[in-house]
Amino acid sequence: MDKPNQFVQYIQIHREELLNEWTEQIISIDDQKVSSIISDQMYTNICNEYINILVNHFMVQDKDSMENIIDYSHRLVQLGWGLGFIIDSLGVFGKILFKHMAEDSSEMEQMKFVWEYDRWISPINRELLNQYASSWQKTVNLQKIAL
Amino acid sequence: MDKPNQFVQYIQIHREELLNEWTEQIISIDDQKVSSIISDQMYTNICNEYINILVNHFMVQDKDSMENIIDYSHRLVQLGWGLGFIIDSLGVFGKILFKHMAEDSSEMEQMKFVWEYDRWISPINRELLNQYASSWQKTVNLQKIAL
Repeated sequence: MDKPNQFVQYIQIHREELLNEWTEQIISIDDQKVSSIISDQMYTNICNEYINILVNHFMVQDKDSMENIIDYSHRLVQLGWGLGFIIDSLGVFGKILFKHMAEDSSEMEQMKFVWEYDRWISPINRELLNQYASSWQKTVNLQKIAL
Repeated sequence: MDKPNQFVQYIQIHREELLNEWTEQIISIDDQKVSSIISDQMYTNICNEYINILVNHFMVQDKDSMENIIDYSHRLVQLGWGLGFIIDSLGVFGKILFKHMAEDSSEMEQMKFVWEYDRWISPINRELLNQYASSWQKTVNLQKIAL
């Protein structure tokens, strides 16, 4: 797995199962009770959009791909999702992907998955979280000007 | 490794080497040029304080331990460290710890390290990043009142 293609191919083929399992799990771990004001469909949309970002990022990696990450992180801010919950949700996705792609493999294959995940998916998550925090930071700076 | 003690013991015994290696690496990856205004000693202090948080958290896990994480994340905000750089720095620490504790082990042992790290250290990092974002969020809310 020296190219991200294996992730993309797997995600594209098993998209429906991954999406359903992920959405179900993050609704169950949502202790911020965001769920009371957000419909299940909205969670599905948010998860679906993240999967689009992953697939697009691997296939294109251009300026638009970065803009997608920025837009997405702004939407999470607007939805009121806390960073802790976002980190947990991304962690759940990683574990589901591991379960599907590597659980029954040898430990050597599992370690390969861990490194490849760290190489290809973690940087996207890092950028998403960074943009989320930057969004708050920019609001602070804009407010400072207004004060 | 069903208790976090192995991490604590290892970190306490090899603290000096881990600290030196970590500080050196994060100075080299600092593309925000924070380094131009922050002395090397300050990086060492920040890294050292994180190690204190880990060790304390494992040994105590009380209210003070949580307050240490909150204070620490506020200090990172004040230092002007971006969330992306903090995520990268924590990632570097994880890799150094892996290299020291598991690199020469069997793949089975390596996978055990990955799961134990995820179980014991990732939640502390999650809380630290969450508090960092909350700190910006609180500033936005305070400024809103002032506007």
